[in-house]
Amino acid sequence: MEATIAITEAEHKKTKPDPETLQFGKTFTDHMFTMEYTEEKGWIYPEIKPYAPVEIDPAAMVFHYSQSVFEGLKAYKGPEGDIILFRPEENFKRMNRSNRRLRIPPINEELVLDYLRQLLELEKDWVPSAEGTSLYIRPFVIATEPSLQVAPARSYKFLIILSPVGSYYPEGIHPVSIMVEDHFTRAARGGTGTAKTGGNYSSGYTAQSKASSEGHAQVLWLDGVEKKYIEEVGSMNVFFKIDGEIVTPELNDSILEGITRKSVIELLEYWNIPVVEKRITMQEILKAYDEGRLEEAFGSGTAAVISPIGELHWKEHTLIVNGRDTGETTKSLYQTLTSIQTGKEDDPFNWTTKIKL
Amino acid sequence: MEATIAITEAEHKKTKPDPETLQFGKTFTDHMFTMEYTEEKGWIYPEIKPYAPVEIDPAAMVFHYSQSVFEGLKAYKGPEGDIILFRPEENFKRMNRSNRRLRIPPINEELVLDYLRQLLELEKDWVPSAEGTSLYIRPFVIATEPSLQVAPARSYKFLIILSPVGSYYPEGIHPVSIMVEDHFTRAARGGTGTAKTGGNYSSGYTAQSKASSEGHAQVLWLDGVEKKYIEEVGSMNVFFKIDGEIVTPELNDSILEGITRKSVIELLEYWNIPVVEKRITMQEILKAYDEGRLEEAFGSGTAAVISPIGELHWKEHTLIVNGRDTGETTKSLYQTLTSIQTGKEDDPFNWTTKIKL
Repeated sequence: MEATIAITEAEHKKTKPDPETLQFGKTFTDHMFTMEYTEEKGWIYPEIKPYAPVEIDPAAMVFHYSQSVFEGLKAYKGPEGDIILFRPEENFKRMNRSNRRLRIPPINEELVLDYLRQLLELEKDWVPSAEGTSLYIRPFVIATEPSLQVAPARSYKFLIILSPVGSYYPEGIHPVSIMVEDHFTRAARGGTGTAKTGGNYSSGYTAQSKASSEGHAQVLWLDGVEKKYIEEVGSMNVFFKIDGEIVTPELNDSILEGITRKSVIELLEYWNIPVVEKRITMQEILKAYDEGRLEEAFGSGTAAVISPIGELHWKEHTLIVNGRDTGETTKSLYQTLTSIQTGKEDDPFNWTTKIKL
Repeated sequence: MEATIAITEAEHKKTKPDPETLQFGKTFTDHMFTMEYTEEKGWIYPEIKPYAPVEIDPAAMVFHYSQSVFEGLKAYKGPEGDIILFRPEENFKRMNRSNRRLRIPPINEELVLDYLRQLLELEKDWVPSAEGTSLYIRPFVIATEPSLQVAPARSYKFLIILSPVGSYYPEGIHPVSIMVEDHFTRAARGGTGTAKTGGNYSSGYTAQSKASSEGHAQVLWLDGVEKKYIEEVGSMNVFFKIDGEIVTPELNDSILEGITRKSVIELLEYWNIPVVEKRITMQEILKAYDEGRLEEAFGSGTAAVISPIGELHWKEHTLIVNGRDTGETTKSLYQTLTSIQTGKEDDPFNWTTKIKL
């Protein structure tokens, strides 16, 4: 599908940043994609234009009631110079699931993927090629109707912005320390935890700040009801290897359905490594640890792909996982996923979408 | 305190709307107040200027992670032509409590109240005087730093916008039907429920839509843990009169600390009507109803002040409260609070702040 779209090129192009010093999500490319939604006309005015501030009414509902959703995915420069996307159709499917939860009108997933393709073609020189680098893609929807009524908006803006990002592991993949959060809650049963909506993120700042001040990289969230069951790590899904079997919390309405999580499960099944989705208590992890059966632990997400966990801190307990080394399965998953994502390895799953230039 | 502030008057003034046809939060006045926050300088550039769209970077963190807080209060035209505010210092205190939860830097409450006073002096002709009308005041803070990192922003914008609003009860105060929500959760223990932050509002749209489609005005939220304890009604606090005693859910970290709620409790104590804050289950309300002891029920909030509840729908039960009539205590609270707010009755509590013109 080739979707028609208005394109205005930037007159002055920015200087590309040094890939060595790139920080996550701080530098943006020359162009962005925008479209509008009105109740009468649906999604209209698809447009690629110079990256610039947007003009928004101060009464726009996104400012007051946070009616918004977002997605995050990465584009890599392939070995033959093409641009490789990893399961992008999954991101737009999930965006529509988030839209439904937040009462935002659905987008046309195929059309939006084509808009993204056209934006990436224009911004092809922004996709970095150094080891570990990529172009981070942020599609998002915000409620723009100027109204203070507590109700779904009647107008929205959809945007895609692009940010070149450096390697998540400039000094090589290394395990991190995680604090299990006993007081604060990320998401509750019946809440918005499965949706990628802003409110799930700023609500975690206090817990993250507590963890950081105690020297931990991330928070491990427990369920909002009993504070017993493991949900997520920071903004990643979480996996444990116990007695050779990989376990991960089963999806419920407070866990984000990660695309990397899904790929990890599919890859493990392909490798014939047993993988189980179930409710897991922190107590079970502690027991496995005490009995010497906790072999590995890692998080999965778009930013880090795979993030090994070296320490878990829960109440008075400290669990040192695999002697603070990256485990074998963790390492294989990271290697294989990043090699498929960057086109260095065959893609038996047909996960990647290649944009030929 | 007279705070120094840059004022730019609008060249063209808007036509004031007919107070008969005003909808809540749809019309805005000629001017707004804005100030900025930077890590280096704190809150700077306080300014009153023409109401207009704001220019914001598409990467502004408020769009992605909903780091925002807001307040809501009303200004009334007093009998002597002055402008009356109801406990405005409580709103800015609460804004700072919300700020703390969302990791937003605190505002100077006294200064901000003076900025509001200056804005209201300029917009004095926008305060409507017809019965039941008022000027709704919406102070809010949004994270403006352009960054996709999941972390508190380093720059913010604080704004105050004003909207003339019509009577909440153009045909007189009347009881509404409420649906008790059994599945969806407004806020969980350890979540952000006590903070006035956007994420708590859009997360309720699905439940509200379900309630509306079944002919109910609002949702009654139960606790996120056991789905047993009563928390709030829509965006109001809730009260019940049982055996002559008024009961309301005690504050916890998932209930918003309403300023009208606080005023209702203080007024009842002043009247020597017994009032108790405690955990209340929906089962207890049903039992009281079945035994003929549930005398009245009402919500409290800035928009409606007091909103009588005529019906409660919970699972297979329908509770008709006081024959769908507004109860005596409900009526007295509404009369007294609105009379104090509009300056028609003495204010023995010193709740009101008068701006002489």
